[in-house]
Amino acid sequence: MPKRIVIIGAHAAGVDAASAARKTDRTAEITLITEEKNAGYSRCGLPFVIEGKIPSFQDLIVFPPSFYQMMKLNLRTETKVTKIDTGKKVVEAADKTGKTEEIPYDSLIIATGANAFTPPIKGREKQGILPLRTIEDGERIDKAIREGAKSAVVMGAGLIGLETAVALNERGLKVTVVEMLPQVLPAMLDPDMAKMVEEMLRQKGINILTGKPVEEFLGADKVTGIMAGGEQINADLFISAFGVRANVQLATDAGVAIGETRLIKTNPKMETNIKDVYAVGDCVESIHMVTQRPVVQQLGTVAVRQGKVAGVNAAGGYAVFPGVMGSAVTKLYDTQIGVTGLTETAAKRAGIETVTGSITSKTRADYYPGALPIKVKLVVEKESQRIIGVQIIGGEDVTQRINAISLAVQKQMTVRELAKADTAYAPPLNETWEPMVLAAEMALMKLR
Amino acid sequence: MPKRIVIIGAHAAGVDAASAARKTDRTAEITLITEEKNAGYSRCGLPFVIEGKIPSFQDLIVFPPSFYQMMKLNLRTETKVTKIDTGKKVVEAADKTGKTEEIPYDSLIIATGANAFTPPIKGREKQGILPLRTIEDGERIDKAIREGAKSAVVMGAGLIGLETAVALNERGLKVTVVEMLPQVLPAMLDPDMAKMVEEMLRQKGINILTGKPVEEFLGADKVTGIMAGGEQINADLFISAFGVRANVQLATDAGVAIGETRLIKTNPKMETNIKDVYAVGDCVESIHMVTQRPVVQQLGTVAVRQGKVAGVNAAGGYAVFPGVMGSAVTKLYDTQIGVTGLTETAAKRAGIETVTGSITSKTRADYYPGALPIKVKLVVEKESQRIIGVQIIGGEDVTQRINAISLAVQKQMTVRELAKADTAYAPPLNETWEPMVLAAEMALMKLR
Repeated sequence: MPKRIVIIGAHAAGVDAASAARKTDRTAEITLITEEKNAGYSRCGLPFVIEGKIPSFQDLIVFPPSFYQMMKLNLRTETKVTKIDTGKKVVEAADKTGKTEEIPYDSLIIATGANAFTPPIKGREKQGILPLRTIEDGERIDKAIREGAKSAVVMGAGLIGLETAVALNERGLKVTVVEMLPQVLPAMLDPDMAKMVEEMLRQKGINILTGKPVEEFLGADKVTGIMAGGEQINADLFISAFGVRANVQLATDAGVAIGETRLIKTNPKMETNIKDVYAVGDCVESIHMVTQRPVVQQLGTVAVRQGKVAGVNAAGGYAVFPGVMGSAVTKLYDTQIGVTGLTETAAKRAGIETVTGSITSKTRADYYPGALPIKVKLVVEKESQRIIGVQIIGGEDVTQRINAISLAVQKQMTVRELAKADTAYAPPLNETWEPMVLAAEMALMKLR
Repeated sequence: MPKRIVIIGAHAAGVDAASAARKTDRTAEITLITEEKNAGYSRCGLPFVIEGKIPSFQDLIVFPPSFYQMMKLNLRTETKVTKIDTGKKVVEAADKTGKTEEIPYDSLIIATGANAFTPPIKGREKQGILPLRTIEDGERIDKAIREGAKSAVVMGAGLIGLETAVALNERGLKVTVVEMLPQVLPAMLDPDMAKMVEEMLRQKGINILTGKPVEEFLGADKVTGIMAGGEQINADLFISAFGVRANVQLATDAGVAIGETRLIKTNPKMETNIKDVYAVGDCVESIHMVTQRPVVQQLGTVAVRQGKVAGVNAAGGYAVFPGVMGSAVTKLYDTQIGVTGLTETAAKRAGIETVTGSITSKTRADYYPGALPIKVKLVVEKESQRIIGVQIIGGEDVTQRINAISLAVQKQMTVRELAKADTAYAPPLNETWEPMVLAAEMALMKLR
């Protein structure tokens, strides 16, 4: 009898799990279940459709119906899993008509993801607080703009918040970003680097208010303004970008254990505490490769890598997930911003003594037209001299520098080794002295 | 008495040596001697001035006179060192008027570089065979174009040859590239990757003739055509891009030992066999970090790194040069081409058994406008599964991927580790699955 693999969730983690399972076991019966109408689309692309860079939300569907056919995957959309019975090894599901059925599994992969979350702020039951997590959310925001919204408040200055703020500003809206913490991108950047981003966004006309918690949603049935840090801000559109909350209820109801971050805990094979039950993506915690401690890292790149590992294992193969480094990038207007490993702030919080090395350089030879500024801030563990993180802000070529340092951190490279690294250069493509190498040199000077 | 440091040569290697020496010893007397009129300029930028991307050859002067003043460096241009006397510890130099003098040194750094070289082909004594190594060379080519040259033959399809071919084509000339070997960029690329470059150049209208040695320069006093592989090719302009030959005569006359590559041999401190005599840049051989064997690697990035090491040591500090990886990139039209470590061909020549992993992907999310193709070819030592090299051709973001793999090779990363690497992604900046990771996956499949 073919192995039955059931996957709850059909986005980055779920679809990659299904795909890996299929490659591992050609005969398995693989079923993907999602509550959403659309499966296998890129949430990360949503702000760019709103911005108008990408013509249509449908363009974000990375895996079209033909993919599921080709891979012989049984996809059930608009279907809600209401219960997991790990004793009987079945999931109970209800389709949009309300019809319920029991779907048996040999291996179950939980990829229930996370939902946008608005904290318990006075008035949050009112209409018009719009998250940006699904295609439907995106369509709602787009509709509001087409119907004449002229101003917006974005609540939360994380990745999604700032990407959405830029998108709305590019669509002609007057945008205010409100952030409770004293800086933007608090999970990605140290305060000194965040300042550069704030300055750039202000120059582009976005109003950035940091250190201002949202205290109340104002208005009758529909929100017309907020109180934030004692200040009233009115607008036509209110974007909830406070963050996301992992969907773990279904799993915990079935006895799946959560970890200290309150997300699902797995071993490196992505197995939960329950036999034949795996969990992947935004609903699980990950082990950070530097601190070796559990962290919440709800990124598409993590989801697909975990999905692949779980898919292989669920289908009878063997794979382990090595942990996360927190590599992330974004592009805001023409500025690229990236991080991997620990920031200075995060290292301090983890009790790691650091030195840093920062340098401002250019992305091409100084004399080559179009050379853009780039700033690299390297974070080094003082005692071992190992590189433990980097933050980069620049006009181009940020992402692959992040990847380079991610590999270096993974391989325990010291700052001394980086300062001697063999790098590539051509006048249109880089400076002779690679900025990462110069940043290493700056850190070394503090270690002497 | 202040330490006297004399440096023969004042480009990448020499100036960086002087700069490092000054930072190490604030009181040293540092003298730079060059035969050229201009010191401290970027040879790598020459093709881009010809192309018109950079307004003037003078823009290539990275270190202006104010730099030497600020760093208290004694710069002597248009001065030729005629002899090194390592017994008396003096160099004999003649200025442009023919006046000679003896300049004493405590430490001597030989950075005599390399010159463009035309092989002993019949007729090579004729006028009009133009190299591109100095600003004067560049001005000569530029003048010929302004005076009406309509066609050019570029002899040699290495980096300089192809960059110059593109420059001339962009200036409106009909360009033919003639290469003796069966492929372009033979030092950088395997044949399969070189094919992509050849195809691209042909589509841009450059005539690429591989496997055609130049047999004769035709014409009376001035070259008007060549015979190559039995074929006659006439043109207005003839560029000698056969390669460069290290200037080692001055050093060997003084008893400095050369290595098996016939370039100057040094230890990791960049010391030659003679006490207090260092050598750096295009005139020295380097140890390859993968093969641990001496190689010829005449690159600006290598020159500055070696210069820095020699400068520190010559001034009484301590530094070692860790070797080279052969990281190199170029941009031909809108195509970026890069390499680090060993190609499959070079590995074979070194007796290393390899598997490779190749993938064609995109530089951005498939749905994001402007996503460009990128091809990654990873070279892996079969037995150890260590990554030993990569070649990448793509529309953007090639250089830093080269740097990433350079760090990975330096840290002995296995292909299995790369296949699990934590990488960064955002729709405008990368695909969810990093192409380098996918290439690692392809190589792994062959190892199973």
